[in-house]
Amino acid sequence: MITNKNCIIRLSRYKNSLHRLKTLGFVKVFSDNLADAVGVTSEQVRKDFSLFGITGNKRGGYTVDALTEKLNTILGKDRVQNVIVVGLGNIGTALTKYRGFEKECIKITAAFEADAAKCSRKTAVPILPVEEMPEYIRKNSIKIGIIAVPDVAAQQTADIMIGAGIRGILNFAPISLRCSEDVVINNVNLELELESVIYFVNTMPVTESTASK
Amino acid sequence: MITNKNCIIRLSRYKNSLHRLKTLGFVKVFSDNLADAVGVTSEQVRKDFSLFGITGNKRGGYTVDALTEKLNTILGKDRVQNVIVVGLGNIGTALTKYRGFEKECIKITAAFEADAAKCSRKTAVPILPVEEMPEYIRKNSIKIGIIAVPDVAAQQTADIMIGAGIRGILNFAPISLRCSEDVVINNVNLELELESVIYFVNTMPVTESTASK
Repeated sequence: MITNKNCIIRLSRYKNSLHRLKTLGFVKVFSDNLADAVGVTSEQVRKDFSLFGITGNKRGGYTVDALTEKLNTILGKDRVQNVIVVGLGNIGTALTKYRGFEKECIKITAAFEADAAKCSRKTAVPILPVEEMPEYIRKNSIKIGIIAVPDVAAQQTADIMIGAGIRGILNFAPISLRCSEDVVINNVNLELELESVIYFVNTMPVTESTASK
Repeated sequence: MITNKNCIIRLSRYKNSLHRLKTLGFVKVFSDNLADAVGVTSEQVRKDFSLFGITGNKRGGYTVDALTEKLNTILGKDRVQNVIVVGLGNIGTALTKYRGFEKECIKITAAFEADAAKCSRKTAVPILPVEEMPEYIRKNSIKIGIIAVPDVAAQQTADIMIGAGIRGILNFAPISLRCSEDVVINNVNLELELESVIYFVNTMPVTESTASK
């Protein structure tokens, strides 16, 4: 098992770049092409691929179709991944409607919400009472969940999800969640991401090109 | 200038933890407390602080209020940061309404959208035609922008923003944007974040604790 998250994120980027190159008519690509598209060195591309036993032909590079298929298999994109969303605030609602997931073989099968007034079984993605979540997870063998509840409810929500069988969580609540080692939690904190942009803008030296604007 | 994004993200986490510890009645904290709260080593906490000239007292640790003030100044939280959002799809709309930014002194002052039917000057955050964006950026000296447009429009949007004076971008379009070195772009790709969770769940060995569920 490869435990480096950044490596997996790069594999996803290679896959997305391959898709774009294919639409441009590419049949073969070289590690340099992928390196340019993703913004890493070609050594990095070859190193990442070798970790997964993907080898190219020095003269011919990689065949786009074969490489795409291999990356899709590694990333679990050869089958649909069922995912639930918990918490139907602004972010949770946006994720439930987000069309970017579908083309990546990710299907949001249900959303769960504590406020009964927001629940509806008739929407494209059913919005169910949060009390039904454990049973739903067990019945449908759901392994992946997205947390978009307020920070004070996030740890309890995670505990319930994990207790019912969830093994991977994408967490949007602005708090670091605790879990056992056999569960993966990936925290996406929008405030922190924006704060780091603000910090760099405020501390960047003003160069001639920007000062003249 | 500190150029390590992860260090800045940790500073933001320390600041958020301090806020929670203060609500619990803490007056002083030790690097161990912050290390536990954020999930790093106490050596890391002290190293991060020393980079910014923050020193504690070995016996007394850090005073919560003084440390909070220092971190807020470093992170630019001693004043309101004006930010614009471009693209009012699901994610852009959620960000415009997101209440998490306000308490972090981040103010979304306007949103810009290509679809005239979605524009409105009467909403809490005005939704303006995208053609007005360059003038708005210049007039209001906006330095930070969020891109939430479809991937095919993202690079052009970034170029227009930067041309008008934007120096930092948080990009939600699933594409890596190119820019000159004096502009900071932080890419948040929701599909990739979820894909890495999926990968780890699919490859994790099943342990006894999860197999029994």
